[in-house]
Amino acid sequence: MMNKVGIIGLGHVGATTALLMAQRGKVGKMVLVDQNTAKVKSEQLDLQDQIAQLATDTSVVVQDYDSEQWDKITDLDVLIFCPGKIAALIDHGGNRDYELNITSQIVKEVAPKIKASKFAGIIVTITNPCDVIARLLQEQTGFDQQRIVGTGTSLETARMRHAVGAATGHNYHDVQGYVFGEHGDSMFPVWSSVQIAGKPITDFDVNLSQLKQQIVTGGYTIMDGKHYTNNGIATRANLTTEAILSDAKRALPVSAYDPDFKLYIGQLAIVGKNGIEKLVKLSLNKSEQHEYQIASKAIQANYEKVK
Amino acid sequence: MMNKVGIIGLGHVGATTALLMAQRGKVGKMVLVDQNTAKVKSEQLDLQDQIAQLATDTSVVVQDYDSEQWDKITDLDVLIFCPGKIAALIDHGGNRDYELNITSQIVKEVAPKIKASKFAGIIVTITNPCDVIARLLQEQTGFDQQRIVGTGTSLETARMRHAVGAATGHNYHDVQGYVFGEHGDSMFPVWSSVQIAGKPITDFDVNLSQLKQQIVTGGYTIMDGKHYTNNGIATRANLTTEAILSDAKRALPVSAYDPDFKLYIGQLAIVGKNGIEKLVKLSLNKSEQHEYQIASKAIQANYEKVK
Amino acid sequence: MMNKVGIIGLGHVGATTALLMAQRGKVGKMVLVDQNTAKVKSEQLDLQDQIAQLATDTSVVVQDYDSEQWDKITDLDVLIFCPGKIAALIDHGGNRDYELNITSQIVKEVAPKIKASKFAGIIVTITNPCDVIARLLQEQTGFDQQRIVGTGTSLETARMRHAVGAATGHNYHDVQGYVFGEHGDSMFPVWSSVQIAGKPITDFDVNLSQLKQQIVTGGYTIMDGKHYTNNGIATRANLTTEAILSDAKRALPVSAYDPDFKLYIGQLAIVGKNGIEKLVKLSLNKSEQHEYQIASKAIQANYEKVK
Amino acid sequence: MMNKVGIIGLGHVGATTALLMAQRGKVGKMVLVDQNTAKVKSEQLDLQDQIAQLATDTSVVVQDYDSEQWDKITDLDVLIFCPGKIAALIDHGGNRDYELNITSQIVKEVAPKIKASKFAGIIVTITNPCDVIARLLQEQTGFDQQRIVGTGTSLETARMRHAVGAATGHNYHDVQGYVFGEHGDSMFPVWSSVQIAGKPITDFDVNLSQLKQQIVTGGYTIMDGKHYTNNGIATRANLTTEAILSDAKRALPVSAYDPDFKLYIGQLAIVGKNGIEKLVKLSLNKSEQHEYQIASKAIQANYEKVK
Repeated sequence: MMNKVGIIGLGHVGATTALLMAQRGKVGKMVLVDQNTAKVKSEQLDLQDQIAQLATDTSVVVQDYDSEQWDKITDLDVLIFCPGKIAALIDHGGNRDYELNITSQIVKEVAPKIKASKFAGIIVTITNPCDVIARLLQEQTGFDQQRIVGTGTSLETARMRHAVGAATGHNYHDVQGYVFGEHGDSMFPVWSSVQIAGKPITDFDVNLSQLKQQIVTGGYTIMDGKHYTNNGIATRANLTTEAILSDAKRALPVSAYDPDFKLYIGQLAIVGKNGIEKLVKLSLNKSEQHEYQIASKAIQANYEKVK
Repeated sequence: MMNKVGIIGLGHVGATTALLMAQRGKVGKMVLVDQNTAKVKSEQLDLQDQIAQLATDTSVVVQDYDSEQWDKITDLDVLIFCPGKIAALIDHGGNRDYELNITSQIVKEVAPKIKASKFAGIIVTITNPCDVIARLLQEQTGFDQQRIVGTGTSLETARMRHAVGAATGHNYHDVQGYVFGEHGDSMFPVWSSVQIAGKPITDFDVNLSQLKQQIVTGGYTIMDGKHYTNNGIATRANLTTEAILSDAKRALPVSAYDPDFKLYIGQLAIVGKNGIEKLVKLSLNKSEQHEYQIASKAIQANYEKVK
Repeated sequence: MMNKVGIIGLGHVGATTALLMAQRGKVGKMVLVDQNTAKVKSEQLDLQDQIAQLATDTSVVVQDYDSEQWDKITDLDVLIFCPGKIAALIDHGGNRDYELNITSQIVKEVAPKIKASKFAGIIVTITNPCDVIARLLQEQTGFDQQRIVGTGTSLETARMRHAVGAATGHNYHDVQGYVFGEHGDSMFPVWSSVQIAGKPITDFDVNLSQLKQQIVTGGYTIMDGKHYTNNGIATRANLTTEAILSDAKRALPVSAYDPDFKLYIGQLAIVGKNGIEKLVKLSLNKSEQHEYQIASKAIQANYEKVK
Repeated sequence: MMNKVGIIGLGHVGATTALLMAQRGKVGKMVLVDQNTAKVKSEQLDLQDQIAQLATDTSVVVQDYDSEQWDKITDLDVLIFCPGKIAALIDHGGNRDYELNITSQIVKEVAPKIKASKFAGIIVTITNPCDVIARLLQEQTGFDQQRIVGTGTSLETARMRHAVGAATGHNYHDVQGYVFGEHGDSMFPVWSSVQIAGKPITDFDVNLSQLKQQIVTGGYTIMDGKHYTNNGIATRANLTTEAILSDAKRALPVSAYDPDFKLYIGQLAIVGKNGIEKLVKLSLNKSEQHEYQIASKAIQANYEKVK
């Protein structure tokens, strides 16, 4: 009965995720949580000004950040976790260690509140570094591993389709396949999974390493111009959330727990009402296996800085 | 054949308008224009990351701001005009005269480019002060008055429905009626047009002057928290644009040219493929007529500062 | 967690309701029930062919009509009740008594199965004569009165907006107000609630009794041409269901239990997750009160034929 | 400016295509054409009852079938051609030759009217046998070959995804690939193009010939239960139309003119504002090439019966 979703962190990503959720009209109740009381109230009002003009009904509720018990999140189906301090980050020249220190601290503060609320649903986590934060959230909430779904390389997958489409002269909707690994510089396209309008990418005359570079730098180009990225990732957060709400059992390239490497990492998994329903094992070739290992090392190294 | 829309100014309002346009999926081609080359390129990429994940197709094209001839806007159906300098404005404490000076300057720079492009469609203008800018755009492009549609009091109308719904315990979708006048402090709800679930607002025990105050301050509360408003106005921009594209002939509370007062002001008008198809004359009571006059004086006074 | 809706009766109305539900993409699971095994299987396959092409996920499940226990409907949020025998009805020249005999028999057969399933949600009922069937369903399931929502005069309300729009030269989306009474010939527009683009209908030069006639005959004209009506009513069934699923608390002109007249009749009510949350009492004028009484007598007379 | 689409033939497929078009809300103007005046008027009214309840605006216009000049279709962007006589066909036990005789006659009657109207857009044709009718329409209108797009094997492609998903335990949205050949019994899945969640179908333990059989019989099973199929094909008609309207340049498995075989046949093609923008040549293996030849012979044989 009624889809109910919470959003923790109303920065650019969280606010845009809420905006798109209101527009898509599939969630009956949205609960907003942010440390900044004026900001969260402001987003609630602006969302209501938006919804008053749409044909659909979504109630928008604020969970007071400072209250003892976060009782408004208890019965939610999905919590989208996206706090961050992008402004502070930019002041530090986008330094990734600086970001890690800030966001891992936020997890330490917020995870106990989520746990204490007796929230029994699924967490979709976006905050960077995505794979490390997913792991910290799991450890600090004590939730089953499958209940944490990181957006991981799903955004890079969209960028890959976009870049491959442009390079081959095809609509990006006709490009299939996935990007795996770290949500960050050590991500890698699983080229053996990439197909364009029914043909493997190897049938096309394209420079794969150049394409890979483009996918990595795509995010930086967006950051350069607007100082944050929101459209792509907020769309991704909504689609992943809807896959959980409708128990879609879709194969999505998300950050999921890998029992061999014992960490969260971008890979293909079936996403449904239980979060990660199961992993899909693509047969990676030697080189792709190597890249997967490199990515897992990068994630582990970051984790060790803050564990 | 194919809905084609341009957006001039990719600040928070323009970027969110583009984001919602991509999500709504009714426009085949979107042309972005902004003085800041890095910003506009960045928005284009982020929109494409978004669209690559949606089922719909919208091509996103950039019109180079500095090019001699804005040839990419020539055959568009609608141009959404929303440049502004919100950051500079905030630095000046939100001073309205400062804003007026900046934005009227932008019109002087951009209007000749629109005119020179031989654009033959409709302009939907959002930039503040909305009613003055609509008039300046009309004067400086030389377009027929009906081809300029200001978003005007349509946003206040959404806020009124929201505030009245809350005050009467009704869903805001069950509130009808309009706000008229200046898009600014001298706006006023036409209470005689307001109906809630089939009953006039006079049947309810509510404090109308307090409600009016809430509608005025609603925008400021949002500004306080997030330093801009985007959800409500970007939704409004899309709905008005779609009314034009589908020749809906809907009655909308927009900023339209009033031949009696000889200026653009928030009032009810039929919006269709020709922009303002005709004005709808509500029978205002004495007090409402008075408020309309006050609003028109406020608009005229601002206009005279920059004409 | 996940919106779940059942549809009992896969005739033209039920099948179109399912088709639109799949298209709107807001329901995670749809359960189909029909006596005709080949028909229901066929609709399931055709719906899956449809959904396979859409971006959204809806699982489509069949509840075996003949099974002892209808266990697939137990945990649904909403059941849409729309069985009928339109083909048999047409053979009998559309005779209303013949229809009543058939459909009241269906209620006697199906209501015990719904009750036995321990279904705890809301029933949205469409089958004609709508107001009588709503009452029979309530009596024979023993459910609380508020858990039965008849589509009632909501369809006539759409027709009224459409007819009034055409008569006044306005878009029908700019027409507000409601039709009350029997879903049938003794329905009546509550003209005092009707407003067009902010003005009462009395401000327009229109022939109200002629308009009323048009609303009544609208349904017959559609029947004449295609032998059933489905677009309008299936849209209505979806919107009412979505109002329940999102706990919208919208004022809708539905068939709800009137404690004064002790029967279900078309009137305004707040619809939310509990079905009829409360009645909205419009102040009807003398003539409207009289029409409401006539309608209630017509409904009671039909009820007595089959109780 | 404004998407405008016509639908010729308001049987189950045409009526459902119109219903979905209204629901999807991307077309500003819909023109209905049918020999049966009462039926077309009835559909117009029912569509308006539907649209009056939606948030979007679509005007619904009827082109009088008997008028000398079909002037209401002249400036449309797309014409969907879907007349048929399903009732008569069922009376003849679904006999395909009978159908061919009827529908080829309809083309002879309607094609000159389309030509005379000076319609300059694209025809999306559904009427069966699809590939033969596409060819007859091209010959009898004299339009460029690329202006005729048959829905062809696009529906079988949806069925393939659905059947393969069920067989492999995957969501059908995770199945990629195409069906080619005749829209009819000699269609064939291009198995070498089929990929499930990033893996080729050859990696799965499935019986391909059994799957192929299921795709062929899927349509018959639907026909058995409801005597027509509409959901899947009406969705397909809308998506193909939208690809044209937005100039999507998507790769779709449609019935397009094959210059080698000199006939229309189901194959992959880029669909955009010009209809068939170009063919996409998949490298078929020997067996698939053979099946393509068999399909082309079946189509040619049917064509010769009526040319």
